[in-house]
Amino acid sequence: MEGEPTRVMVAVSESTIKGYPHASISSRGAFEWTVQKIVRSNTSGFRLLFLHVQVPDEDGFDDMDSMYASPEDFRNMNHRDKVRGLHLLEYFVNRCHEIGVACEAWIKKGDPKEVICREVQRVHPDLLVVGSRGLGPFQRVFVGTVSEFCVKHAECPVVTIKRKADETPQDPVDD
Amino acid sequence: MEGEPTRVMVAVSESTIKGYPHASISSRGAFEWTVQKIVRSNTSGFRLLFLHVQVPDEDGFDDMDSMYASPEDFRNMNHRDKVRGLHLLEYFVNRCHEIGVACEAWIKKGDPKEVICREVQRVHPDLLVVGSRGLGPFQRVFVGTVSEFCVKHAECPVVTIKRKADETPQDPVDD
Repeated sequence: MEGEPTRVMVAVSESTIKGYPHASISSRGAFEWTVQKIVRSNTSGFRLLFLHVQVPDEDGFDDMDSMYASPEDFRNMNHRDKVRGLHLLEYFVNRCHEIGVACEAWIKKGDPKEVICREVQRVHPDLLVVGSRGLGPFQRVFVGTVSEFCVKHAECPVVTIKRKADETPQDPVDD
Repeated sequence: MEGEPTRVMVAVSESTIKGYPHASISSRGAFEWTVQKIVRSNTSGFRLLFLHVQVPDEDGFDDMDSMYASPEDFRNMNHRDKVRGLHLLEYFVNRCHEIGVACEAWIKKGDPKEVICREVQRVHPDLLVVGSRGLGPFQRVFVGTVSEFCVKHAECPVVTIKRKADETPQDPVDD
């Protein structure tokens, strides 16, 4: 009776407070909103596509105390990053499994806002859901926001889910 | 099993080409997208709220050839406007009835972008869907766009549905 499921891409990121493998507050909010308000009981009518974009660690701050002595050290580092990203995605894939909704999940590297728009162009979702910290104008200019860029540039309908007020950490730039 | 239905507000306007009671291309696109991609077969899980905002006819151009001799003439004019708006809403309400999804529809007067945001504040929908002509930067500045304003200011998640390329009239400002 129904045709192809509606494909909803959800962009997810790690928590800046708890780090990997924890999902950011706004990613979890975007996901839960999608499940509660859009998918509802119609689990066979939807397919969720989770995209996690890892930012290449340009300055290597995270690895200040590490020693790199061989090409293998770098391979290990890349491998470790990938494993962290997979653990993040595991959370969402497990939740979908519990709920009974089909999903896919994958990782890309690069600038999140640009990679998300490129992936939209590649996989053609029916809807893109992005979480947002709901920052004020000053903080927004300072940190840049992925959601505003996607609303403008992604070639599909985009919905931005703002973090609830009671979920906002002390420093709203945190997530 | 499911709680309250998801309440989706759809802002609808009349066609600039065909006039009342015809719905604009982008309104119809926003509605059809909502039904096909979000509601799907889960008709009991959703309630559609149609808001049509009528712009007060400040310059009276539409009524250049009319004669106003009494207060009743003005009442008739207001009545006629209201009837036109109701016929527009009738189209969407009829479609919902065919599909079997619950709906409400009402008319307000004022500046569409401001009234839509005010009504969002009043009725608290779970999602606001607005059609967009997908104008280029120059045309956008010239005519102003309701969708961009709502994405920024409406106090609920907003999704903008752009008109399909093959539905764009010769003058893209038309709708």
